[in-house]
Amino acid sequence: MTIDFEVIHKDIAGRVGKLRVNGRTVRTPALLPVINPHLPLVTPREMQEMGVEALITNAYIFRRSTEFCDRALAEGLHRILDFDGTIMTDSGSFQLSVYGEVEVTNRETLEFQQAIGSDIIVPLDIPTPPDAGRERTVRELAITMDRIREAQRLFPDANLAGPLQGGTFPDLREEAGRAIRDLGFSFCPIGAVVPLMENYRYQDLVEVVLAAKRGLSPATAIHLFGAGHPSMFALAVAMGCDLFDSAAYALFAREGRYITPHGSFKISEIAELPCPCPVCRSMTAEELRRSEDRERLLALHNLYVTLAEIARIRQAIQDGTLWELVDERCRSHPRLLAGYRRLLDHAADLVRHDTVSKRRFFYCGSESCRRTEVLRYHEVVPRIPVGERILVSFDGKAAPGFDTVLNFKPPFGPYPVELAETFPIGQSEIPDWDEEMVRSGCAGIRALMAANPESQLAVRCGDAWAPLVLEEVPGAEVCHERV
Amino acid sequence: MTIDFEVIHKDIAGRVGKLRVNGRTVRTPALLPVINPHLPLVTPREMQEMGVEALITNAYIFRRSTEFCDRALAEGLHRILDFDGTIMTDSGSFQLSVYGEVEVTNRETLEFQQAIGSDIIVPLDIPTPPDAGRERTVRELAITMDRIREAQRLFPDANLAGPLQGGTFPDLREEAGRAIRDLGFSFCPIGAVVPLMENYRYQDLVEVVLAAKRGLSPATAIHLFGAGHPSMFALAVAMGCDLFDSAAYALFAREGRYITPHGSFKISEIAELPCPCPVCRSMTAEELRRSEDRERLLALHNLYVTLAEIARIRQAIQDGTLWELVDERCRSHPRLLAGYRRLLDHAADLVRHDTVSKRRFFYCGSESCRRTEVLRYHEVVPRIPVGERILVSFDGKAAPGFDTVLNFKPPFGPYPVELAETFPIGQSEIPDWDEEMVRSGCAGIRALMAANPESQLAVRCGDAWAPLVLEEVPGAEVCHERV
Repeated sequence: MTIDFEVIHKDIAGRVGKLRVNGRTVRTPALLPVINPHLPLVTPREMQEMGVEALITNAYIFRRSTEFCDRALAEGLHRILDFDGTIMTDSGSFQLSVYGEVEVTNRETLEFQQAIGSDIIVPLDIPTPPDAGRERTVRELAITMDRIREAQRLFPDANLAGPLQGGTFPDLREEAGRAIRDLGFSFCPIGAVVPLMENYRYQDLVEVVLAAKRGLSPATAIHLFGAGHPSMFALAVAMGCDLFDSAAYALFAREGRYITPHGSFKISEIAELPCPCPVCRSMTAEELRRSEDRERLLALHNLYVTLAEIARIRQAIQDGTLWELVDERCRSHPRLLAGYRRLLDHAADLVRHDTVSKRRFFYCGSESCRRTEVLRYHEVVPRIPVGERILVSFDGKAAPGFDTVLNFKPPFGPYPVELAETFPIGQSEIPDWDEEMVRSGCAGIRALMAANPESQLAVRCGDAWAPLVLEEVPGAEVCHERV
Repeated sequence: MTIDFEVIHKDIAGRVGKLRVNGRTVRTPALLPVINPHLPLVTPREMQEMGVEALITNAYIFRRSTEFCDRALAEGLHRILDFDGTIMTDSGSFQLSVYGEVEVTNRETLEFQQAIGSDIIVPLDIPTPPDAGRERTVRELAITMDRIREAQRLFPDANLAGPLQGGTFPDLREEAGRAIRDLGFSFCPIGAVVPLMENYRYQDLVEVVLAAKRGLSPATAIHLFGAGHPSMFALAVAMGCDLFDSAAYALFAREGRYITPHGSFKISEIAELPCPCPVCRSMTAEELRRSEDRERLLALHNLYVTLAEIARIRQAIQDGTLWELVDERCRSHPRLLAGYRRLLDHAADLVRHDTVSKRRFFYCGSESCRRTEVLRYHEVVPRIPVGERILVSFDGKAAPGFDTVLNFKPPFGPYPVELAETFPIGQSEIPDWDEEMVRSGCAGIRALMAANPESQLAVRCGDAWAPLVLEEVPGAEVCHERV
């Protein structure tokens, strides 16, 4: 297998990387637009001019098409689609998820994908739907794994992807991840997640993807198969997904739906085009609605905003501001917010993926208290050298009789003056202190006390914070009368 | 004065409206790009093609320009700028704020603005900077008001704007608002706020604008003079601002800065162009950086995203989703978040501006508990008809022995089944219940108890919520064992 994946930048569990296949490079995170050769709303050539480096098409459709099958075999996909970038093919597994059966074997689809010149080929995995019983999920996962092994055996030199199934059972997803890792795959599509996304089940999506990640090698490029809407890309990337494929730009256009990174609108219902893309800055909503070219114009708009979101995510990773972007996007729908909060439940696991130092930390609301940077700081606190009598001073003023005086910055906690300029203390911006962030800072004080059980600790805080400090830091002396 | 302003849609204190001047109409909220005739990076004609309906230019610059003064007097502004829309002129007040003096009198600038065919003319107001002493602020406000009255006396038929000053003293801003209201102005620029925005003092900005609004008539179109960056437009509109003017698209371009609605980047520091505009989808960040046309391309990009943000705000007002947009934008910087929280401090005042029923309520985080819709619901709760024994049921299940059984939906509170389909109960989407929203819902229970002191109230909730309910609703019986 000659799919090569290199990680260049990291943030949370997300990365900017390079996927190299057959001499071509795809920058990740990447969106692979889905091309249906029968309905070319936007041509692959146009997409290439918009910056698309890879796309995905369905080998099963080509194979069954009287119009395209022979041409594809004779000319190859790149020529027939007029696209110089990387082309991935799906096996027919999507049709399996929709129709329950397909007229092709694993071997046949793999042979066909290679014969038409696909750059990344996928075995015929079984897309077990969410909430299928455990027995069925186990049985179908076993078939998928058999087919993956068969693919490796039959085509040892092919650019094979290793699709990951396991339904909504985290342990099965993790097990599948370990198996795919052990088989040496560098490219793994996580399958059968579309129904979760269609039903806004982002909490379940987080559990499924994180479970898969636990099993997989961190060096593997992860493709979230069938995802999806740009509003969830940032969340998915934060979990470690690197590639998306989406027919949404075209499907939504057909239904008259206008995509934005913060949700979709029916074009019949909007009076304004809230977007800077070439389509939206060249006409009014009314003109778009009435255009004979409406479906194509909507598809172009949908694609522009989707590609811009991918660019924004890449930039955020390089800036170390992916948490801020996840926060922004996930507040656009309460179910995404639920997914974000679920991801924060796993912050202790994410800490080991995340970078130690970032450009900045912007406090975006109480959820920020649970970010990896705060957890990591609380892990650092016990290493602060202290004497027998410690003062944590909320207002930065000292008091007599202490061996160690530490400052305090919520949501992090106590810090010595030596850390004042370092990340995150020096590079964090917070609004006026609020209860949530001071509680989080108090967790830092508790970490300090736990690491120094012989020391005595006092907190110098204003009267307003004294009750909260007394509640959050039992055993500390609160010298609030001094402030 | 023949400036006419009509409000079409409302949300919070924001509105979509139509400003009619000299037979032309400007949809609001609107951005008036600032045109410097000496530095036409983007031409007014190009702006018109991008959807710009009004612009602002500086009469003082025209008056002192050997190149443009005579031409402007001979041909008029519309012809010289090649722009068919509405043109507003500044008086020289901006130069006063920068240089401390100008070589023009109030009468002279007003005469000149009229002579060159400006559609909206502004007296020579005194831009008192923030934090100026009270004495100076009072004195300068008196001069501004004298000049406004002089303008009305000298030019009773002119399309006069009534600029509002008063520094950072809310009472003076409110007083100025009342005076301008009493003089009958339908168009009011709020002045001298640029230094607040430049220094991210959004809390102060909220206080200044809300104070001005308290004094002004709700029928007056409000122009936030010199604003600014698209990241703060939603916040400003929520307070009731209708027009912005901004040189930022050009000034930032000159400094190599790339505007987004969530903050700005130095073009030298970005690897990706995270935007769907025609500039960003036609080249890479590297190509933009190296382009000979860089300044103009950046100005175009900056203008595209700024206009798109205005369109998004108008759409949000029509959808009744302006709070969600304010929430999204204000989390992009902790100082904006502080401004948003300050605005929420004034929610009780905003309720009387806000619409009663909206399309939806999306919970975006704990700040959502303080939104106008929640406050308004708590005002409605006392009107729920109840019997002597009331049960508020968290799980929707009844229990024997009660006259009235109410359901519970946080962050709103108790509701009878008759309200289940009405706004906000039926149209609100929330993630898994969190502490903040249940506390807010408990405030609704307290409102019910206060309105029905003769009734006995019990709350049926799970064990997990019982301690919080006991704390928040003293006097209620908690039957948590039943769940």
